[in-house]
Amino acid sequence: MTSQRERRAWAALASVVEPGTPGIRRAVAEHGPDAVLAALRDGRWEGSAGSALRRRALGADGASVLERTSRAGLRFSCPGDDDWPAGLGTLDVVDPKDQIGGGPLGLWVSGAVDLAELVERSVAVVGARAATAYGTQVAADLSAGLGDRGWTVVSGGAYGIDAAAHRGVLAVGSPTVAVLACGADVAYPRGNAGLISRARADGAVVAELPPGSHPTRMRFLARNRLIAALTTGTVVVEAAARSGALSTLRWAHHLGRYGMAVPGPVTSALSAGTHQALRGETELVTGVGDVLDLVGSLGIDAATAPRGPDRPWDGLPPARLAVLEALPARGLRTVEDMARRSGVGESDVRVELVELELVGLAEAAPAGWRLGQLARAARSADRRAARAAVEAADGGTPSAGA
Amino acid sequence: MTSQRERRAWAALASVVEPGTPGIRRAVAEHGPDAVLAALRDGRWEGSAGSALRRRALGADGASVLERTSRAGLRFSCPGDDDWPAGLGTLDVVDPKDQIGGGPLGLWVSGAVDLAELVERSVAVVGARAATAYGTQVAADLSAGLGDRGWTVVSGGAYGIDAAAHRGVLAVGSPTVAVLACGADVAYPRGNAGLISRARADGAVVAELPPGSHPTRMRFLARNRLIAALTTGTVVVEAAARSGALSTLRWAHHLGRYGMAVPGPVTSALSAGTHQALRGETELVTGVGDVLDLVGSLGIDAATAPRGPDRPWDGLPPARLAVLEALPARGLRTVEDMARRSGVGESDVRVELVELELVGLAEAAPAGWRLGQLARAARSADRRAARAAVEAADGGTPSAGA
Repeated sequence: MTSQRERRAWAALASVVEPGTPGIRRAVAEHGPDAVLAALRDGRWEGSAGSALRRRALGADGASVLERTSRAGLRFSCPGDDDWPAGLGTLDVVDPKDQIGGGPLGLWVSGAVDLAELVERSVAVVGARAATAYGTQVAADLSAGLGDRGWTVVSGGAYGIDAAAHRGVLAVGSPTVAVLACGADVAYPRGNAGLISRARADGAVVAELPPGSHPTRMRFLARNRLIAALTTGTVVVEAAARSGALSTLRWAHHLGRYGMAVPGPVTSALSAGTHQALRGETELVTGVGDVLDLVGSLGIDAATAPRGPDRPWDGLPPARLAVLEALPARGLRTVEDMARRSGVGESDVRVELVELELVGLAEAAPAGWRLGQLARAARSADRRAARAAVEAADGGTPSAGA
Repeated sequence: MTSQRERRAWAALASVVEPGTPGIRRAVAEHGPDAVLAALRDGRWEGSAGSALRRRALGADGASVLERTSRAGLRFSCPGDDDWPAGLGTLDVVDPKDQIGGGPLGLWVSGAVDLAELVERSVAVVGARAATAYGTQVAADLSAGLGDRGWTVVSGGAYGIDAAAHRGVLAVGSPTVAVLACGADVAYPRGNAGLISRARADGAVVAELPPGSHPTRMRFLARNRLIAALTTGTVVVEAAARSGALSTLRWAHHLGRYGMAVPGPVTSALSAGTHQALRGETELVTGVGDVLDLVGSLGIDAATAPRGPDRPWDGLPPARLAVLEALPARGLRTVEDMARRSGVGESDVRVELVELELVGLAEAAPAGWRLGQLARAARSADRRAARAAVEAADGGTPSAGA
């Protein structure tokens, strides 16, 4: 648990440092928030932005930031808190294109939920503001499908695809998280104020900026990294060739999450960005089934299925199961990548892979590892059963909300 | 050159053996057409279809088949002829799904062209019969673009995507090849009779069946393998989940050609098959630029570009250049695959790769080879220049037909 003194230091730092500047975050990880705040105030912090940042640091008072936070109906969460989402811990990377990165120094949250719990099973659905009718329909259907199956949909609260994604999941009574590039108390864009209030009531609104902050281009880009980091995977529904949504996808790839895109007509400029992404490492998805085939982990998604008594991974120790879940059914994955995805250290990943290989659950290839034949067969059987169960439920009693 | 006696034997065999039965083709490769025809007639050929096939072989007379061929306004081409397309030599494979394969025993051709020359720079554009307006527009535009750039478009003469592909390339005054699943003198489907006549006049109509033959399901599937074998790559524009067009794509992959598909709305059942293919090894293409990026070989497609004097592959010996052209810019390719694509033997491919690696034109990875940094950079520069030249031409004087 974070001490009150530390919390004030985090809040002061988070209120003066622009989102996505990785150097300070790294220094905090090494020396603690108090020491870094003191260094900023004393002018011992190096860098061209030093003096403006120093003035802001001298003016910042953690206690009053926290007081303003409560007055705005928000709460402040920082690394070390119980509801701090684990996925944010993977953000110690810098995007080579936008030159932003690093984990947040704190999050302002609105909504009566445990944020960590809310995003544990979550998918980001993002895309163009100037979306087409096709894009908004696909985004809303996909989000509704994810909500129906117990997944939280995370998006950016913007017009177009983001709004359709929030609406789609709220419509089936499942929670959504809007991650904003301004204060969590600011309704931006104003036209989505009603939708953002509903996200607050039925999920959460999250921001990396103190109450009252306004968005900037860099803040949008920094916000995109949070959307990718909070979720198991990011689906881009429509994106023009240079759309900001593609930066969220890039972050998903940086962080070892699933990067997915929905194709569209090649005659539509709003699918040019998604098609470009699909020619790279992004996975093509056409609906909720494809998304869950990727993000659904072995154990969790098979939970709804009537299962046979002897799945080959029953009773595996947790680290081995985590490594097994990080193995791809298609293509190959490196040990480094699996370590990132599973949260298991690289050398332990190697040990577990050898154990899994011995029992036919993993297969080695020159360029990486994949699921073994035994696991692929069992997983397919589980998924077919899970789908059959969902379809049966859809046709019979209404499926339960989250 | 094939002797008259051999030609009669090929014609007799081709007129009695169903397309896509690989055993007889293999026996002919080993023992020659005369010997196999004699074996069939003497009842020495084993197999369940033996007796019906024997009766047909006994009734077949090569001379009269060739006479009927001329009377129908066709000519008969067989392995060994100068205009026999080299790509057909790669067909000694059996498709595990449809259980068909093997090269043709002969082709009936209509059209005053050298077939081998006509398909030397060719791309197949195929797809659903019940195509949407979107699909037919994309197919026609793509084919027109290919024709404009000097590529022959090969398709199956069917309704829908095939017809749009033929029409698109004919409209820009470039040749097309219709490969039919019936006799080359039969206009099937009847509604495309006019289009098939135009293909005959401005390109060629090709069939693996003697004049007057009618199509069957198996003949359609066997025909698909010819479309893939005749071309550098196959583009599927629209295909439902179990569309026959997907078998053409599968054949392109079997034969080491480029297998490409155009995405579409995920809400369209006619894009379900293409999206499924795109989740596998099929390449996503959105237009003629993407197709040429794949099928265009280094030297040829850069020919239209204003080029600097010192491209790194200038002056390479032909075999080395062929291997260089078979190297992928993205992903990896095995030596075996490159041998198939380049027509250079595997051991020579290995020798040339080492030479190319020494000068930075090839790079080795554990699972295969790719273009070296130097070649990638030069090729990108060439393509940008080529595209700029095409765009300038499009905006200025009308671009020349083939």
